[in-house]
Amino acid sequence: MTAAPIFERMALIGIGLIGSSLAQVARQRGLVREIAISTRSSATLQRAEELGLGDTYALDAAEAVEGADLVVLCVPVGANEAVAKWIAPALKSGAVLTDVGSTKESVVDQVSPYIPDGVHFIPGHPIAGTEQSGPDAGFSTLFDQRWCILTPPENVDQVALDRLTAFWQGCGSNVDQMDPKHHDLVLAIVSHLPHLIAYNIVGTADDLETVTKSEVIKYSASGFRDFTRLAASDPTMWRDVCLNNKEAILEMLSRFSEDLSALQRAIRWGDGDKLFDLFTHTRSIRSSIIEAGQETDAPDFGRHAKEDVVNSSD
Amino acid sequence: MTAAPIFERMALIGIGLIGSSLAQVARQRGLVREIAISTRSSATLQRAEELGLGDTYALDAAEAVEGADLVVLCVPVGANEAVAKWIAPALKSGAVLTDVGSTKESVVDQVSPYIPDGVHFIPGHPIAGTEQSGPDAGFSTLFDQRWCILTPPENVDQVALDRLTAFWQGCGSNVDQMDPKHHDLVLAIVSHLPHLIAYNIVGTADDLETVTKSEVIKYSASGFRDFTRLAASDPTMWRDVCLNNKEAILEMLSRFSEDLSALQRAIRWGDGDKLFDLFTHTRSIRSSIIEAGQETDAPDFGRHAKEDVVNSSD
Repeated sequence: MTAAPIFERMALIGIGLIGSSLAQVARQRGLVREIAISTRSSATLQRAEELGLGDTYALDAAEAVEGADLVVLCVPVGANEAVAKWIAPALKSGAVLTDVGSTKESVVDQVSPYIPDGVHFIPGHPIAGTEQSGPDAGFSTLFDQRWCILTPPENVDQVALDRLTAFWQGCGSNVDQMDPKHHDLVLAIVSHLPHLIAYNIVGTADDLETVTKSEVIKYSASGFRDFTRLAASDPTMWRDVCLNNKEAILEMLSRFSEDLSALQRAIRWGDGDKLFDLFTHTRSIRSSIIEAGQETDAPDFGRHAKEDVVNSSD
Repeated sequence: MTAAPIFERMALIGIGLIGSSLAQVARQRGLVREIAISTRSSATLQRAEELGLGDTYALDAAEAVEGADLVVLCVPVGANEAVAKWIAPALKSGAVLTDVGSTKESVVDQVSPYIPDGVHFIPGHPIAGTEQSGPDAGFSTLFDQRWCILTPPENVDQVALDRLTAFWQGCGSNVDQMDPKHHDLVLAIVSHLPHLIAYNIVGTADDLETVTKSEVIKYSASGFRDFTRLAASDPTMWRDVCLNNKEAILEMLSRFSEDLSALQRAIRWGDGDKLFDLFTHTRSIRSSIIEAGQETDAPDFGRHAKEDVVNSSD
């Protein structure tokens, strides 16, 4: 795809899984003319350069954003305020500033105060990722068919919003708009709670005295291994999510615990009908997710290639 | 593979995912000479016949086990007692009787009393499956590289145990032995708890008033969809597991809840160090599972083909 670039110069502050994927897709599909990369770790910056992800590389974020008409903050959400403070004086008038963080109210609160007039700050969140992190983990198709949620302020500049929307669409995403508070509530249930539950169950298994770690590993294909994927996600990112979406996460955790107590009670009292009802009720949502193109329809996530055909011996 | 068959006639009582997979692998690799299939649903039996899974088909389980030197109960664990009672008088002397149920103490308690002298009852549990069920869901490689746990009684006939072990190895499995009580404890953490947690979180999400079902579906790629796989598992099977491994499941649930309360507290008090420690601690177990050959090493379970190469535009 080589339409006219949507932005002239994109600055990526942070070059982990998301930043690296953005660099690759933007380059490959001609969405920007030039890519400036900045990260505070010199080892990571060097790796980004070895991978050829950008055109210029700088440890100084302010240097990277100079002249950029698109600036994307790709750092853990807890680092946004410091970065905003750092780059604010160097931001070009008319530039679009966005981020990719998993929480949005905190970003609005922490970044907005530093943004000079004439810079268009439109927070964003691509609903895409894997359990891996770092520049090597990125790939250009990460955003294909995934949603990207933008949380534009009320007085947003329409042209800036349109350009950012076109950019994400160019990355392969569908773009939605939401207010930051609602975003944080939705993500608390679809993303933050699942990650916390996964971290928690893996921790519980690891602490048992009666079941050895080697048994957990050997027999993990019976369910447990699914949770280890989310529980292998980046600890800094997830610490920051917990610290920056506290209210919504605590609300969802408390609902989850309430439901779990009811389930525990049904097991204790041998209430087979209640168990059967819950286990039936939850079945349909997966087919809806598959129909919506958000999940593979292969059994076991496609881990098993269904290599053989029934009757292959006939 | 066409070594000499290990058993002459295998009777499968129940022909869901596991029964169907056993029929296919046994046929394909010549592990048995003849396959008799029985299930109480005539529609399922007809489907098994259409798929050509066996040599003979009977609604009467007692008829199917006649002359069989290997009988495998492939029914939900709650149905084992009724089936045992039914087939006991028809079991051939010297036959090996086993099962594939996810709980083992209950099976020993419920089946053993009916087994005539001269029949070798050796409970078993292949740690393999997908979220799908029914005869169409089966495939011959399901057991490859998976573990099968046998829980032989103390006075087990060694020849019978060796034959059953060879059969499972022929199916592609590694075979372990364990006492039934320990099996149930191990499975409570690696399998039963993960399924219950998955059912529970999907239920919680489904009940929210503030987040719509369509939002949950659209943004599920951010974590939630992983849980929907386990929560799409067979409700009858899982109801029976809960009813038949109550003590161990309640023990694991209570540990999980205790840990979750501590996590909740760390979030409420903004204890970033504690969160970071937990999230780091859980990372390593996934690599151990991958090294043990029990999980794919592809990011995101391999859902994303990493189609492009960095620098593909150069």
